Amino acid sequence: MSDNYRWILGLDIGGTNVVVGLVPLEGGEALGLRRLPTLPDGGGEDVVRRAAAAAEDCLADVLGADAGRRSEVAGIGIGAPGPLDRESGILLEAPNLGWRDFPLQGLVSEALDLPATLDNDANCATYGEWWMGAGRGSEILVGLTLGTGIGGGFVMNGEIHHGASDAASEFGHMTIDSTGRKCKCGNYGCLEAYASGPNIAARAVEGIEAGVESILTDLVDGDLEKLTAATVYDGVVQGDPYAHEVMKETAKFLGVGVANLINALNPDAIVIAGGVTRAGDHLFGPLLKEVRRRAFRSAVEACRIVPATLPETAGVIGAAGIFKKETFGFV
Amino acid sequence: MSDNYRWILGLDIGGTNVVVGLVPLEGGEALGLRRLPTLPDGGGEDVVRRAAAAAEDCLADVLGADAGRRSEVAGIGIGAPGPLDRESGILLEAPNLGWRDFPLQGLVSEALDLPATLDNDANCATYGEWWMGAGRGSEILVGLTLGTGIGGGFVMNGEIHHGASDAASEFGHMTIDSTGRKCKCGNYGCLEAYASGPNIAARAVEGIEAGVESILTDLVDGDLEKLTAATVYDGVVQGDPYAHEVMKETAKFLGVGVANLINALNPDAIVIAGGVTRAGDHLFGPLLKEVRRRAFRSAVEACRIVPATLPETAGVIGAAGIFKKETFGFV
Repeated sequence: MSDNYRWILGLDIGGTNVVVGLVPLEGGEALGLRRLPTLPDGGGEDVVRRAAAAAEDCLADVLGADAGRRSEVAGIGIGAPGPLDRESGILLEAPNLGWRDFPLQGLVSEALDLPATLDNDANCATYGEWWMGAGRGSEILVGLTLGTGIGGGFVMNGEIHHGASDAASEFGHMTIDSTGRKCKCGNYGCLEAYASGPNIAARAVEGIEAGVESILTDLVDGDLEKLTAATVYDGVVQGDPYAHEVMKETAKFLGVGVANLINALNPDAIVIAGGVTRAGDHLFGPLLKEVRRRAFRSAVEACRIVPATLPETAGVIGAAGIFKKETFGFV
Repeated sequence: MSDNYRWILGLDIGGTNVVVGLVPLEGGEALGLRRLPTLPDGGGEDVVRRAAAAAEDCLADVLGADAGRRSEVAGIGIGAPGPLDRESGILLEAPNLGWRDFPLQGLVSEALDLPATLDNDANCATYGEWWMGAGRGSEILVGLTLGTGIGGGFVMNGEIHHGASDAASEFGHMTIDSTGRKCKCGNYGCLEAYASGPNIAARAVEGIEAGVESILTDLVDGDLEKLTAATVYDGVVQGDPYAHEVMKETAKFLGVGVANLINALNPDAIVIAGGVTRAGDHLFGPLLKEVRRRAFRSAVEACRIVPATLPETAGVIGAAGIFKKETFGFV
């Protein structure tokens, strides 16, 4: 490792936002953070161009105007929604972005004249929590990221489990009810069909449309299309019984998924990320209860189930950590 | 490693049978196999005494009367139903045996005057298939053993994934229908509640009791308590439509579980063991169809789903392989 290297860029490309930041080589907070809308419909090249400009802004912000300091940056780690091929750095298919066979890693590397690595965004988030967040010290870490979809990651002894075709840890598409709710992926009963943000909202709306009275209706001025998972959270904070019920059911569904992961992988930690974790005990209370009911006691006792501590930057920090690991062999 | 060592004993203690055999150090078939009923109600000490006597028979059979050749045996690998503590060699709880906190490894080691290792029986079976069976060459192998219960194993780069408390790979207690059939473990909708031997039989009986006419009734002379999974298999062989239906449903439930494992772990091979695999395409046909429906295509394409090739001896061979791995660091 060159003694000169002091930084790694982390770039987290999501369906909604792109975030970029500069991470100290030895680990730490992401500095000079830039956040921009992804606007994927403009095409991958346009996103790369704007992301690279944001990365330049970030570098100028943290390192100042001295161009010589650019040599302190070892490279850039990129996280993006899969499926992707890590070896070639190509996004194979990204349903949330609408691109196919897009050579993301090469284009970013070229635009910034820096070496780059590419990994799945949920792997990056889990790795970030393992390196610098709620998963520190864990030897067998499972990460769950609840958002538009549900992503997952599995880090063992500091190594991401990628699987045979870079497709591992799709925990959102674990069937928990084989004849249950239809999922966006086309199947029935995936965890994601119950506990992703849009599905939390959809379940809440279904009850209201069936006649339940709730403050949630008022919170969206009667326009149920505006109801989101965040609305449910607001309803919980305001003490609405129906919002509590929806949250509790969400927690139970998540508990089934978490119990499955505990019975299968026997991890020492599970880190749960996403806006819904703001509900705190309203989520984690019934979730733990369901986990204790369904998972083996010794496995439950061996596992701490905790909220993420880097909700905004785990992806950036993890992408940078993966670059470091792949380039230098350790973090 | 002493140049003298040429053999490892493998001992597989199940709820019904104990099997012991002598495995060549470099791997191969288990020789001098002895099989005896476990009769766990007589207590652990009695089982150890009879298992040790069977092991002595096995040794005499393969090595002959020359006591000097005993020094060729490096030790004994033991497989037993969990939960267990590998470090201390103690069976913590074995519901199928009825023993608690039983120092199995120490007692076997003492009885045979050989060093011993202990591991979960389903881990042993998976390791045996990886070392010498259908899982050879796999880098990420998942094993499923369908019997009285459903056991699992997960072998990565030749290492068993034991988890944080030796409780990993309890794939039988993966929830596939959170409000589904009651499982022996107390929960609802575990894979085992649908696809273990007794549950395949129970589902078949439920249909007959509800009025379905089937050859299965004749095969047990009208005594439905005698109906087992093997009866269902016999019915399939004889072309009974209802037996086919039960087998197909079994395959679909298993397909849900296998799809979950593929989406979570992205293995390059899944080996399925147990009597039900005798049904061949009647099982694997609808199973693969359900897997393709539920798992991500690239992950399905990366994975071969195959029947075990060491149905009788995978546990013995795997237990011996684990002894070798733990004692000498490689197999």
